[in-house]
Amino acid sequence: MTIPADTAPGARIVVPVALEGRAYDIQIGRHQLCEAARLIAAMAPGAKVAVVTDERVAALHAPAFEACLQQEGIGFTRITVPPGEATKSYAQFIALCDALLAAKIERDDIVIALGGGVVGDLTGFAAAVLRRGVRFIQIPTTLLAQVDSSVGGKTGINSSHGKNLIGAFHQPALVIADTALLDTLSEREFKAGYAEVVKYGLIDDPAFFDWCEVNWSRIIAGGPERDHAVAVACKAKAAIVARDEREEGDRALLNLGHTFAHALERLTHYDSARLVHGEAVAIGLALAFRFSQRLGLCSGQDATRVSRHLDAVGLPSTLQQVPGGAGTAQEIVAAMGQDKKVRRGVLTFILARGIGQSFIAHGVAAEEVTAFVEAELATNGQAR
Amino acid sequence: MTIPADTAPGARIVVPVALEGRAYDIQIGRHQLCEAARLIAAMAPGAKVAVVTDERVAALHAPAFEACLQQEGIGFTRITVPPGEATKSYAQFIALCDALLAAKIERDDIVIALGGGVVGDLTGFAAAVLRRGVRFIQIPTTLLAQVDSSVGGKTGINSSHGKNLIGAFHQPALVIADTALLDTLSEREFKAGYAEVVKYGLIDDPAFFDWCEVNWSRIIAGGPERDHAVAVACKAKAAIVARDEREEGDRALLNLGHTFAHALERLTHYDSARLVHGEAVAIGLALAFRFSQRLGLCSGQDATRVSRHLDAVGLPSTLQQVPGGAGTAQEIVAAMGQDKKVRRGVLTFILARGIGQSFIAHGVAAEEVTAFVEAELATNGQAR
Repeated sequence: MTIPADTAPGARIVVPVALEGRAYDIQIGRHQLCEAARLIAAMAPGAKVAVVTDERVAALHAPAFEACLQQEGIGFTRITVPPGEATKSYAQFIALCDALLAAKIERDDIVIALGGGVVGDLTGFAAAVLRRGVRFIQIPTTLLAQVDSSVGGKTGINSSHGKNLIGAFHQPALVIADTALLDTLSEREFKAGYAEVVKYGLIDDPAFFDWCEVNWSRIIAGGPERDHAVAVACKAKAAIVARDEREEGDRALLNLGHTFAHALERLTHYDSARLVHGEAVAIGLALAFRFSQRLGLCSGQDATRVSRHLDAVGLPSTLQQVPGGAGTAQEIVAAMGQDKKVRRGVLTFILARGIGQSFIAHGVAAEEVTAFVEAELATNGQAR
Repeated sequence: MTIPADTAPGARIVVPVALEGRAYDIQIGRHQLCEAARLIAAMAPGAKVAVVTDERVAALHAPAFEACLQQEGIGFTRITVPPGEATKSYAQFIALCDALLAAKIERDDIVIALGGGVVGDLTGFAAAVLRRGVRFIQIPTTLLAQVDSSVGGKTGINSSHGKNLIGAFHQPALVIADTALLDTLSEREFKAGYAEVVKYGLIDDPAFFDWCEVNWSRIIAGGPERDHAVAVACKAKAAIVARDEREEGDRALLNLGHTFAHALERLTHYDSARLVHGEAVAIGLALAFRFSQRLGLCSGQDATRVSRHLDAVGLPSTLQQVPGGAGTAQEIVAAMGQDKKVRRGVLTFILARGIGQSFIAHGVAAEEVTAFVEAELATNGQAR
């Protein structure tokens, strides 16, 4: 991945998240770590800070951020967790809570997640329940986290029964999306995050999908297109979260592709060597559009356009591309069953009438899904 | 303990808790279990119910309540946890979350706590974080839980660093205080709960303290005085919670006696054979008034009147009455240090200018507290 020439170091886009009583800003731009420290010092004079990060991110970015904290005279403790999805566990949750208590983080202090979605979800949940809630700041270091998990207040850990089944809605007090931090991502990790970027076009912004088709390689390369893409994604998510914080309606649209994705992640045992979340989402997006096509909701042209774009970017778009295989149709549908989106045993899906025309479909019959997945598996990835 | 002749079985007092968007009722009266089932059926038609209880309460009250659920056609699962404060642990929290997931409790279903404060706090916390929050109903079976822990939405578990350090604010959808359930309590358990009843008089209701001095034995015996006392306590707590749900101000008044109490519980290792919460609170209330007296805030008459009433009821009111000893002054003050009420290392105390005239005192010096506790220990329980 080439590292772009920097745009003006101070340049940033501010996206407000309008939640009554808990409004906060997302600041997007390159080299924002010292700006983050400045904002923290202004927000909470005299507060202690716990910086929660993983071993990989700690080596890359923690010293730079901590130097900024020191410059502002902010006292801090660093807490490091292991990298990877397995960290979203009861055991790591307990270890983190106890480490925060040992660091004497009190109600007026601040917990910061410096890392990807795993660090953000785990840290946000710990901050939500530590002393029944302390302030929490997100500094996401992956594209996935910058455009999705760091915005909107969903936090949580996994249980043996499924992903994110234990958690809280706990809004951050601030999100700093420093797009320069993404320069250190592997191409695979960056592209996985890109699946969540393009999702916003597919949900309700066809013009953004058009723009992505033209500009995707410049988003990866960095520069103003990257900042623009992160800002569009954050604005779209902020608008939905402001309308429906607790996912009682509209917010479910953000799950486009995710019912399939969560099942695939479950069946590959959350093994990132096989499938990372964004790759599962890419397959899920393609499947959601082909399922919509099969149900007569969406044109074949649109479904094909979605798959073609994912293929062009180098993301998977078929069940055949799951390394080691995804399982049988029955296994895939069964793996959808234990999901928060299930209400009284009926499946809820996000389907689409076309690109940018997604909607929430309640009461989708399990047999319909099974028949569709069987057909997908039968194509051997050829029939498209 | 004598069991009173029943008052009219349908009679009940309804106390509304006015929280915007999450208002709920506390219903107080004898024999309210089938009324609870009727309300649940009306509130959530078709919902599944998980009844969380402890082994002791299960034997006494679960079959009667489950018969009521059956009568209303409500499907339920019973989940039993061990009795005692040690149940408010990470391990029991995990076991309960997994049991609720195994019972396929979904977002529209209901989790019920049938038990004392331990069951209520643990169950409420699990309900707060299960699928990021499911509805929760309290059916408290101890006096302590009916007048304190079941109202107001504080839930949580203990850590090795202290009590209730991990938890959530999660308001119940309904509280049913069936005062007939209290007939099965031991005298010791009932009296411990009584400490939290009389606390409401000491905070801001001197007339209620007067009434308690006259009527305490009738509250224990049962009948209309018991229901009245529970209702007064719930009304007082509901009013404070409606003003300040998240304890950013006024709500801290409810902690009258609790800074001392939590330290004593910590030093006796939460061993209920030595000290139960309500007994620690009784000592804490007496100490808060004598400390206020020492600081020149409160008259000696009022401080003595508090201790005398606790003595008359048969509750402890001195450090000497802690079985096995409370520890040294230094140990007691150090044990206060790890408390949610600590902000930036400064102690916050609830002090009193007299009976019914409590207030929040920020910035109490640790040396003042140490000197007071040393003087208390030096009296050998004689000098009053």
